[in-house]
Amino acid sequence: MTEQLDSSGRLRHLLALEGLPRAALLRLLDRAQALRADAYAGSALRGTLAGKAVCNLFFEPSTRTRSSFQLAATRLGADTLNFDASTSSTKKGETAADTLRTLQAMGVHGFVVRHSEDGAVAALAQAAGAGTALVNAGDGRHAHPTQGLLDMLTLRQAKGPDFARLKVLIVGDVRHSRVARSDLHALRTLGAAEIRICGPQALLPDAATLAGCAVTQDLDAALDGVDAVMMLRLQRERMQQGLVASLQDYHRDYGLTVARLRRAAPDAVVLHPGPMNRGVEIDDAVADGPQSRVLAQVANGVAVRMAVLEELLG
Amino acid sequence: MTEQLDSSGRLRHLLALEGLPRAALLRLLDRAQALRADAYAGSALRGTLAGKAVCNLFFEPSTRTRSSFQLAATRLGADTLNFDASTSSTKKGETAADTLRTLQAMGVHGFVVRHSEDGAVAALAQAAGAGTALVNAGDGRHAHPTQGLLDMLTLRQAKGPDFARLKVLIVGDVRHSRVARSDLHALRTLGAAEIRICGPQALLPDAATLAGCAVTQDLDAALDGVDAVMMLRLQRERMQQGLVASLQDYHRDYGLTVARLRRAAPDAVVLHPGPMNRGVEIDDAVADGPQSRVLAQVANGVAVRMAVLEELLG
Amino acid sequence: MTEQLDSSGRLRHLLALEGLPRAALLRLLDRAQALRADAYAGSALRGTLAGKAVCNLFFEPSTRTRSSFQLAATRLGADTLNFDASTSSTKKGETAADTLRTLQAMGVHGFVVRHSEDGAVAALAQAAGAGTALVNAGDGRHAHPTQGLLDMLTLRQAKGPDFARLKVLIVGDVRHSRVARSDLHALRTLGAAEIRICGPQALLPDAATLAGCAVTQDLDAALDGVDAVMMLRLQRERMQQGLVASLQDYHRDYGLTVARLRRAAPDAVVLHPGPMNRGVEIDDAVADGPQSRVLAQVANGVAVRMAVLEELLG
Repeated sequence: MTEQLDSSGRLRHLLALEGLPRAALLRLLDRAQALRADAYAGSALRGTLAGKAVCNLFFEPSTRTRSSFQLAATRLGADTLNFDASTSSTKKGETAADTLRTLQAMGVHGFVVRHSEDGAVAALAQAAGAGTALVNAGDGRHAHPTQGLLDMLTLRQAKGPDFARLKVLIVGDVRHSRVARSDLHALRTLGAAEIRICGPQALLPDAATLAGCAVTQDLDAALDGVDAVMMLRLQRERMQQGLVASLQDYHRDYGLTVARLRRAAPDAVVLHPGPMNRGVEIDDAVADGPQSRVLAQVANGVAVRMAVLEELLG
Repeated sequence: MTEQLDSSGRLRHLLALEGLPRAALLRLLDRAQALRADAYAGSALRGTLAGKAVCNLFFEPSTRTRSSFQLAATRLGADTLNFDASTSSTKKGETAADTLRTLQAMGVHGFVVRHSEDGAVAALAQAAGAGTALVNAGDGRHAHPTQGLLDMLTLRQAKGPDFARLKVLIVGDVRHSRVARSDLHALRTLGAAEIRICGPQALLPDAATLAGCAVTQDLDAALDGVDAVMMLRLQRERMQQGLVASLQDYHRDYGLTVARLRRAAPDAVVLHPGPMNRGVEIDDAVADGPQSRVLAQVANGVAVRMAVLEELLG
Repeated sequence: MTEQLDSSGRLRHLLALEGLPRAALLRLLDRAQALRADAYAGSALRGTLAGKAVCNLFFEPSTRTRSSFQLAATRLGADTLNFDASTSSTKKGETAADTLRTLQAMGVHGFVVRHSEDGAVAALAQAAGAGTALVNAGDGRHAHPTQGLLDMLTLRQAKGPDFARLKVLIVGDVRHSRVARSDLHALRTLGAAEIRICGPQALLPDAATLAGCAVTQDLDAALDGVDAVMMLRLQRERMQQGLVASLQDYHRDYGLTVARLRRAAPDAVVLHPGPMNRGVEIDDAVADGPQSRVLAQVANGVAVRMAVLEELLG
């Protein structure tokens, strides 16, 4: 596996939160928090990546994540290039590694990569030459490390730095979720007191992913006394695949309502990676309610991505 | 309805020219004219929106209008982000308001919004938080206020500031045209002497839109002595809808030819919002002739959009 | 034909390498080499095109070439605008000339244009007003002059400035290749000692294009003692058209393998414009081998495009 850290402990790539040392994780969270505190600090940061080019290399489309990375890179003064590989050279038979090496030869040394296959970003990091840094912006079901980081930053802002006091519940399609996998790795690294998983049997992942988690199909029981609820998006294709009966059934069993949320701790917070299916996995009154941290997550996303790009390329 | 002006009369959003006070309209035209005069003034203007992000949030595609806004924002020093909502999160079931709030949480405070539904941009302005400014770049048949402004600027450059002496003719598919609606509101606010409307019965709008206008199906009569002719684009889908028999028939009855244009005042000017259907609503010899102001409109468009963004975000 | 040079011999447009004087060609290569030598010189170059806008106006999509031009323009400090004409106004019936003139009226004076029709870019250069410069980024089978320049720069870096000592072989679908046509013009201008062409009979161009070249269907014989092999991409549609039997047959007869390459001079270099069909026209061991100059070509591409944009707009 490609090493994410160099010999001095500095980030070379960000491929997954699995295996990322606690010190590196905390360093990124601290730097992101500092960037949040001064609301990106305006022009002072523009010199950080001046003259460097960051390419959003997306083999799977995602306007939302791409926009967050683009704003992060722009605020650090980088030139940004959007390369939609889902509609370009790849269709002409070029390998992903050739596309990457071509852009690298053009002078791009920072890549934000999304791909539909597990492990594809790590494979590209292997193919990349020295002096090139990759950030995994989501690969298959495997990992979405900047989402994991922004979720941890959001939890820390709401609950303080001591994760050993936190009970966290993840609800939904954990099986297909790279967000959940990255969150699980980060929560373990930060030493969360208790991690609960709730979702339909057909949407639960393998045992290794669930290691150390309490698993249930009963959302009411799962919510009891938790400090944070991390809701996952239900992809509509799960119904075509027969893994979920209907949106109505899903909402009845796994949708977060105001009534249900009362079972959690009074100051529990609710997270969702977006885009939300309102009325399916989450009700309007929860999404827009006082316990929701959904927009804080989005704001933290830009700060986390700035912190990552700064460490990789600055 | 969302107020477009704050208590001091400054623009908060630009949603429509309807209801925009004459003073605000003239102020924007004056500023745009000043920007034209120094051909965007180069580097001096780059500081205006430095560190601010402007997002082109298009729920309906339009490369042309997007490009004009992008150049305007860039010349003021803003970071620009193109978010094609017609191919992104919206497809995943996210509401337009959630898309807007997400981008806002990323630190974007200026939005240029196009949407296929009447009133959609005003609804989004309601959903937007404080400190966020929206510009309507076209919503359904309702309004396209920057097009209205650039048309007025073009008329003023050609005919001077006294609209009370102007006879203006609008020709074509007024019924489906947000451009015509914005032009009509602006012409009334500026006190045009006479507004004539000419187009097939099936393409005429409701009586309220036509209030105060002279309406006819006879283009030759309508052209008689006018100072300006504002041609509208004929969408080819009007034929599939059975509202127009054929392009040939439409050209025969409503196409602007050199011969017909002779009926207008000798120094009459011709406007068209583009893209033009040459040989349908307008002949080459008119489009490229000495009375055409089509390219002046395009150049004015960038200046008007700079003036609007500057007042909203500067 | 639109003149590419003004009366003082300075580039006004870059439409084709055919007819471009040797002095102009060498000047561009020298400048590109200087830009390579200082790896784009960082911030010192950012002022070159500051405040100027360069539009990638692509009537045929190409993410790869567009990215190279975008990076080149950005490094010179230009504002860049990507206008994908294959999915915009053109579909609404607007002529290419109207699209160009519209963008020109918005204040864009540098255009990088790709089009599927031979001669389309020269026609647009005719339609463009004074003060506007066009670069042909590929038109039909006609020309791709910046690719020709970057290939010459790559050859010169590998083999020195004396082309009169070079034997060069071009292999593949010369008939449909704008790259090959631009290479042929440049090689003649620079006085290459010998130009050989090898490819299936059905993929050979007309006699005028082949003038002065040695033509063969025997790749082994063609490779004998050459100093450079320029491989062309095989478009998969050539099979549907019945011009090529199968990828396997093509590889057997015209694919460059390590064994075959041994017939060339020991220090021969291999070029390919990309994207490569590995295992079809070129084997992995050649593409990634010590004689490959494929990534040098890509790096030279950015430098050549900077040199061209600088001379046109600086």
